[in-house]
Amino acid sequence: MKHTRLLTLLVILLATLTIQSQPEKLRHPENTTGTDETKKNEAEIQKWLDRWTKAFRARDVDAIMALYAPGVVAYDLVPPLQYVGKDAYRKNYREFFDQYPGPVDIEVRDLHIVTSETLAYSIGLERVTVMQKSGEKSDIWLRFTSCYQKLNGKWLDTHDHISVPADLETGKAALDLKP
Amino acid sequence: MKHTRLLTLLVILLATLTIQSQPEKLRHPENTTGTDETKKNEAEIQKWLDRWTKAFRARDVDAIMALYAPGVVAYDLVPPLQYVGKDAYRKNYREFFDQYPGPVDIEVRDLHIVTSETLAYSIGLERVTVMQKSGEKSDIWLRFTSCYQKLNGKWLDTHDHISVPADLETGKAALDLKP
Repeated sequence: MKHTRLLTLLVILLATLTIQSQPEKLRHPENTTGTDETKKNEAEIQKWLDRWTKAFRARDVDAIMALYAPGVVAYDLVPPLQYVGKDAYRKNYREFFDQYPGPVDIEVRDLHIVTSETLAYSIGLERVTVMQKSGEKSDIWLRFTSCYQKLNGKWLDTHDHISVPADLETGKAALDLKP
Repeated sequence: MKHTRLLTLLVILLATLTIQSQPEKLRHPENTTGTDETKKNEAEIQKWLDRWTKAFRARDVDAIMALYAPGVVAYDLVPPLQYVGKDAYRKNYREFFDQYPGPVDIEVRDLHIVTSETLAYSIGLERVTVMQKSGEKSDIWLRFTSCYQKLNGKWLDTHDHISVPADLETGKAALDLKP
């Protein structure tokens, strides 16, 4: 009888542990919509965007750069083709704020955030409003793509791509498009 | 004695199963460089790029579009600000090939591929060479960003961003930059 009880216990334990040791199902984006993990990651990327917007409005280059990974590669609205590394990108932000010393603002439309456990991206249309040195207010609708990696538990931006389309017939940058 | 043996067996089984049921370690990008899983995903994205390049050179819009997800959102070199969905993006590819009926070619430089289990991106500089209708050959260095999701075991492009920088002083698209 004692043997039987011990064997029963063994079988129950085996069954329980076998269920627990099943490999975790792959988290395909299409079947994770709404999972807690996905929601958490999406909220974290939204928080990244909120922090960036706050720092941008405050013209705080240090706060902006704290959101980027050391090896960031950025394709910005303005030349050159690419900015490689945080120092180059910081210089570019600094030059932008020097060029537009007045208030700057940001409005985002058609935002999409896609996440996995360690990688994420956000895309959207972005209206950047600046004050020209002449005192004239101007705004441009841009497209932005940002890619992020979770490094030591923290989402950092590893790639930015910011642009307007080009009119190949006239050679002009399309600075007056609206969504 | 029999009890003791059975208990020993139980303890060994418990220990073994406990080790096996440890959750798999998170695959942070910084500690997976070179793992088989990362290498496999990187090779798959490289294969995606090779397929795209082959289809582009062959001017095969169906083969190109087979590489995209239905809900793709693309920010292309040319207006409008965005192409939403496969039909809109297909029409854009078709118009590109109609505009340049001669040979087209692609050269990629400074390529970076970053992957997780279900999400990936590739970025790089891309020289697109086309034959104008006048018979003149022209080439432009672009920046490209592509984001991918593994959907039903297959990597599909869910976002493209292709651009040249803009000169805000002159309003011109920077079509003559070289890396």
